[in-house]
Amino acid sequence: MSDVYAVRRGQLRDRCAAVGSAAALVSRPANVRYLAGGAPPGAVLLLGPGEDVLLCPRDPAGDPSDGRTDGRTDDQLRVSPLPDSDGDPVVAAAALAGSSGAESLAVEEHHLTVSRHRAMGSVAPRLRLADLGATVEQLRVVKDEEEIACLRIAAEITDQALGELLESILVGRTERHLALELERRLVDHGADGPAFATSVATGPNSGQGRHRPSDRRVEEGDFLSVCLGANYRGYRCEIGRTFVIGTTPAEWQIELYDLVFAAQRAGREALVPGAAYRDVDRAARHILDSAGHGRSLAPWTGHGVGLEIDEDPQLTPAAMGKLDACVPVTVEPGVHLPGRGGVRIDDTLVVRPEADGGPELLTITTKELLAL
Amino acid sequence: MSDVYAVRRGQLRDRCAAVGSAAALVSRPANVRYLAGGAPPGAVLLLGPGEDVLLCPRDPAGDPSDGRTDGRTDDQLRVSPLPDSDGDPVVAAAALAGSSGAESLAVEEHHLTVSRHRAMGSVAPRLRLADLGATVEQLRVVKDEEEIACLRIAAEITDQALGELLESILVGRTERHLALELERRLVDHGADGPAFATSVATGPNSGQGRHRPSDRRVEEGDFLSVCLGANYRGYRCEIGRTFVIGTTPAEWQIELYDLVFAAQRAGREALVPGAAYRDVDRAARHILDSAGHGRSLAPWTGHGVGLEIDEDPQLTPAAMGKLDACVPVTVEPGVHLPGRGGVRIDDTLVVRPEADGGPELLTITTKELLAL
Repeated sequence: MSDVYAVRRGQLRDRCAAVGSAAALVSRPANVRYLAGGAPPGAVLLLGPGEDVLLCPRDPAGDPSDGRTDGRTDDQLRVSPLPDSDGDPVVAAAALAGSSGAESLAVEEHHLTVSRHRAMGSVAPRLRLADLGATVEQLRVVKDEEEIACLRIAAEITDQALGELLESILVGRTERHLALELERRLVDHGADGPAFATSVATGPNSGQGRHRPSDRRVEEGDFLSVCLGANYRGYRCEIGRTFVIGTTPAEWQIELYDLVFAAQRAGREALVPGAAYRDVDRAARHILDSAGHGRSLAPWTGHGVGLEIDEDPQLTPAAMGKLDACVPVTVEPGVHLPGRGGVRIDDTLVVRPEADGGPELLTITTKELLAL
Repeated sequence: MSDVYAVRRGQLRDRCAAVGSAAALVSRPANVRYLAGGAPPGAVLLLGPGEDVLLCPRDPAGDPSDGRTDGRTDDQLRVSPLPDSDGDPVVAAAALAGSSGAESLAVEEHHLTVSRHRAMGSVAPRLRLADLGATVEQLRVVKDEEEIACLRIAAEITDQALGELLESILVGRTERHLALELERRLVDHGADGPAFATSVATGPNSGQGRHRPSDRRVEEGDFLSVCLGANYRGYRCEIGRTFVIGTTPAEWQIELYDLVFAAQRAGREALVPGAAYRDVDRAARHILDSAGHGRSLAPWTGHGVGLEIDEDPQLTPAAMGKLDACVPVTVEPGVHLPGRGGVRIDDTLVVRPEADGGPELLTITTKELLAL
């Protein structure tokens, strides 16, 4: 179980060596978790030049603790709680690397603040601080089967929570209450929590991907769009669906729904190993664009998921790169008509070769236009 | 209404001028909100040298928008959405400051990452980037009466949510469910959301301030400690209480409760304008220390609250500085006995002169040891 972390650290060490840095400091929380298993908030990982060390802030409760919290852990990693509760683990790591004779230390400049970086320089003035860049994020893009299994369970939980909501009375309830109920149901079914703030959007708010739930109540004739996901052992998935409230959808609602459905299907079908990110985006975007909605589209039509809800790759018109097998992504086009509302349909899928049956759909709630 | 933001920006401008910087860039979200009212995620505030500008990321939904979201806004502030959805507002701000002829720009080095700071330098190579430090955080310490009114409402909501929980059946329910129910009740009573992740701790977990709710169920004879707070219009308060489950508390439970209660009262009574932060901490800490719990205490016994749940001042043994009137703080000592559990009692209060009646208690739920 703990081998997987040692293997990942070995991969990172190889990449560091290739750019001439014998030591690296990983501070971004999802990256620390990827390389060390469960770690307390604020812990950072010092990789080489000697043994690897997980430096943890002192437990604020003051209890004796090895600094470990939830999640899988790794017996091969030395865990070092800081002696001082005011101490910053990145500064302690710089001091340790400096005193161990390392000449350079690669750090995550996209995560460290200027103040912390400067404090590291002060305690280890002879240590050259290089940039590790997004090396760990790149390692995280392709998932192993154990990671995909966590995502699959997260998606099952999400489908269950959404399915139960659809069986309840919706008219008259507020967006905010529906969102809270969905989050409660996620936890009921075994999620560690929501993967992100649940979005529920009704009537004129519908179709907006990141709408913050308001006190607007569900009314007859509304579009209702929801976007939610479970966090299961750190792995986060996402589903988005749009429904219509009442017996019969209006003509414009059916047309808009069919259009977004066609765009989302095109995006899903474009998910093959070797496809350029931008081509997947274009497959979905082109359909909405041709129908005259190009100007109002979000800048992405999907993105990677894993230990963070929004990670590489980005499915955008300008993205560089190609899909690999075993990369989980969302496909989530949507159209919002100001003042009227709109439609968003969002799935989490795993890229798989055609020989293995093509993309694996994790979020299986129906995409028919249901009238609730 | 919007005057308050212009006044705050004037204060910041004075402080910048005093250290020789005509322009400042505020990027830390709570600081932006303090100076500009409601602002979308990622917005940053450029102060001078010309007019003040709020630079906002392009709305990802692509809808026409002035970039404003919830909260009070400020009509005197120019709002500038970025043309490009990939653009970083801090880089755009550096370019704008550079092209407007500013020689130096003070930035929040404790918030900006090394990567963003470097990108700013690249687009405006002749602009000297100075450090604004915690100037805005310092302005935020003393609250005006409108801010205190928001905190008072947040505390009322929190007391209501907690009061309802106490009337329900608790035995057999999990920590996780109780925490979710408390958060739902906060929203029911008008909170914008929880001020922080609600903590519910039972039995051996009780008394730990930041315990993450688990699947442990409430049992007869347990201590039950809860810590929660409402976010109302951005302002966050905190309450913590410990109860005993069943009819009669054990002798050790009564003793421990009385001890923590005495420490918390001493801390509250030390809240007078002019008191040193460390003396407030010592008043509470000394009582627990004398009873032999010194080694297991958290490094703080309280902290400021406002737009963030944990802000200046810090009530710790090494803190420098003195309390002013109109500073809201928590007083939250606790003792946790490994394997047995413990007690934490936490209130939010506003420092007031004795002539005005002394510290104003915002969280008024009883601190008697209730048997539930």
